[in-house]
Amino acid sequence: MRAFEQFPRSGRPLMVKKFGGTSVADVERIRKVARLALESQRAGNDVVVVVSAMSGETNRLLGLAHQMLSRPDARELDVIAATGEQVSTALTSMAIQSEGGQSCSFLGHQLPLRTDSAFTRARIHQVEQERIRKALARGQIAVVAGFQGVDSDDNITTLGRGGSDTTAVALAAALGADVCEIYTDVEGVYTVDPRVCASGRKLKSIPYEEMLELASLGAKVLQVRSVEIAMKYEVPVHVRSTFSEEEGTWVVSREKTFESRVLAGLACERNQARVEISGIEHHPGRVAELMELLAQMNTSVDLLRHCREDVHASLAFTLAEEELLRARPSLEQLVERMGASRVHVSAGLAKVSLVGIGIRSDPWIAARVCRSLARHGIGVSDLAVNELRISGLVEGNHADEALRILHEAFLLAPTDAAEPSAAYAEGGLQ
Amino acid sequence: MRAFEQFPRSGRPLMVKKFGGTSVADVERIRKVARLALESQRAGNDVVVVVSAMSGETNRLLGLAHQMLSRPDARELDVIAATGEQVSTALTSMAIQSEGGQSCSFLGHQLPLRTDSAFTRARIHQVEQERIRKALARGQIAVVAGFQGVDSDDNITTLGRGGSDTTAVALAAALGADVCEIYTDVEGVYTVDPRVCASGRKLKSIPYEEMLELASLGAKVLQVRSVEIAMKYEVPVHVRSTFSEEEGTWVVSREKTFESRVLAGLACERNQARVEISGIEHHPGRVAELMELLAQMNTSVDLLRHCREDVHASLAFTLAEEELLRARPSLEQLVERMGASRVHVSAGLAKVSLVGIGIRSDPWIAARVCRSLARHGIGVSDLAVNELRISGLVEGNHADEALRILHEAFLLAPTDAAEPSAAYAEGGLQ
Repeated sequence: MRAFEQFPRSGRPLMVKKFGGTSVADVERIRKVARLALESQRAGNDVVVVVSAMSGETNRLLGLAHQMLSRPDARELDVIAATGEQVSTALTSMAIQSEGGQSCSFLGHQLPLRTDSAFTRARIHQVEQERIRKALARGQIAVVAGFQGVDSDDNITTLGRGGSDTTAVALAAALGADVCEIYTDVEGVYTVDPRVCASGRKLKSIPYEEMLELASLGAKVLQVRSVEIAMKYEVPVHVRSTFSEEEGTWVVSREKTFESRVLAGLACERNQARVEISGIEHHPGRVAELMELLAQMNTSVDLLRHCREDVHASLAFTLAEEELLRARPSLEQLVERMGASRVHVSAGLAKVSLVGIGIRSDPWIAARVCRSLARHGIGVSDLAVNELRISGLVEGNHADEALRILHEAFLLAPTDAAEPSAAYAEGGLQ
Repeated sequence: MRAFEQFPRSGRPLMVKKFGGTSVADVERIRKVARLALESQRAGNDVVVVVSAMSGETNRLLGLAHQMLSRPDARELDVIAATGEQVSTALTSMAIQSEGGQSCSFLGHQLPLRTDSAFTRARIHQVEQERIRKALARGQIAVVAGFQGVDSDDNITTLGRGGSDTTAVALAAALGADVCEIYTDVEGVYTVDPRVCASGRKLKSIPYEEMLELASLGAKVLQVRSVEIAMKYEVPVHVRSTFSEEEGTWVVSREKTFESRVLAGLACERNQARVEISGIEHHPGRVAELMELLAQMNTSVDLLRHCREDVHASLAFTLAEEELLRARPSLEQLVERMGASRVHVSAGLAKVSLVGIGIRSDPWIAARVCRSLARHGIGVSDLAVNELRISGLVEGNHADEALRILHEAFLLAPTDAAEPSAAYAEGGLQ
């Protein structure tokens, strides 16, 4: 995203409030959103609202497209998918008017919110703020469609699952908002998914870096890209529930977090597949070729290992099952070119990750992860330790138990006196 | 609509094909549309497809809006309504691709198709053809969203019920298309609605002027505005069924019609209301004031009468019940300003019209209309005779019978030897 031009400000605090699909699921809930926005405006703020599609709507629309064609054209898919937010945005604007407020809706192409041309998973290049500024100056609440933008040729693009978070944070960055509030159906960021582990606790705050790791590792509470932008432009993000008045979790820079922490939290990505290609002729370009291929397809792999065995080499990595389906034909071509002797794919795996700044300084943490799980008969494969995280693969049906074991081992007995820093991080790509 | 700029042509014939809601009602029907478009392309034509929303979808979307607010903001209403065509357009483009063709979808803002800012009933100012030309030059079928455009400020607008006809004809005019084919769920233009009167027959052709009258008087088969544009730019329009191979009805200039005719056809507008305002102080500006007020609201009235009675005057006119609902508050203000002594509204009426060039030359036709109906005990009020039509108000529950009586009286026994000229014209504004 490019740097933002300066624009005169009103002097009033500026709030960007993003509401997810469950918060705009029906007319009554949209009215609730309108009231929240109006309360904030009446308290003296300039208010920008970003909405997702009504829950279930994006799936309905994509289902329609897939009924037509098993692999629909990505450009046309985005034209269809963008209508979900178009409807909820106008309905939200109407709801504000029906509650006595003034508002105006804006679609991606109307701002415009410019992206690259990677349909279905576009990245934001620039957000024009002029129309929003004018609406705010007129005393209106600006209601902006999340998830959508346009490329340089005015083709409609979408930002991928959870893309409305990214719209909200990018807008907050462009407008220099005082806070970006992400309203969702959970109370904030948790040490671990409380539905899996009853001792999971809501955090008061978490630094961008840890949130970024957790989001990358399966946390559905915020889209990865939105955390990247928040971190880059230092946008304070407040994750909170639409259905409660309570303070949620602040995602802020490390120096602004309220507690000092060693370990951040647990994340889990389900429906993972592991691909192992063995008997490849050893050649330094092979891994590069694979990574380039996957980058072209916008597929991200994790836990990549490249082992040399005599004159041959093997290559293993994990990716989401859904991605595997998409990547398979190209992968098969590449494997053939590599002259591999064996390709083995295992699915139904879960990637469990422990995130925290403490990991870079304590070599024993990895050992304790394996020991704790082994004690309960859970095997871990493809363990990877980076600066901020440890990830390992377990069988999918062991994931919940693994999360509970690790939560007890690391996050109920924090190594410092403060509240354990951790994040609710659950779910795969669906 | 402004005059069109010249653009280099491919030399191949150019067909604009418009498909209504029932023709794109589900995935299977959209595939049928795709096959029709591809057949035409394979026969050597450049093909532009214009689609309406899947049938029922516009009503579903407007219902959602009205659930939120009984009088939703017109700008936001259009943002929602336009999504219906956005979805069907992309689905149609996907269907063409799934049948092995190449295609690209275009929304109103992508061409752009510029309109004025009269939300929910905008008029087209200009259609840019560059993107469509480029798509055709690449061998693609251009699939254009009907019903929608953008105003000069990029706000989304819609063209009113049946607006996709207007999109298609305006595109055909802009592109200099050889024909604009309107695919619908009836076989063409009929002498009278065959569901009401079994002796109704399909016409081979009808001149623009008569079609315009019939469309204005309740024919749902073509939007009025589309006929105006077709007439102005002499676009040959072919109204035909999506579900049959048969030739439909050609709407063309009088000199190109195949038969010479004296009477055109019967039309019926249901759900009409009659407003009578009496005891107004006589003043020449009063009627003008009323007409200006209604024009501002984009409401059209018919059968307007202004009678002077001594120093006072009375004013009566008809309009659609739906329009009355919308116009009522402003009307009441105006009536108060006029100092009228009495306002009387009657609803549930139907306006039955006989259209044809013969009317201007035969003063007995009006008398025969009243006599035929009177013989069956049907009273007619507010009879109006213009150059090309006779219209009268009957009670709504007499409408079908009145159509059958008039069809027998005028259209089964034509005054010339050729096939009687008449048009299928049924329905009110819903």
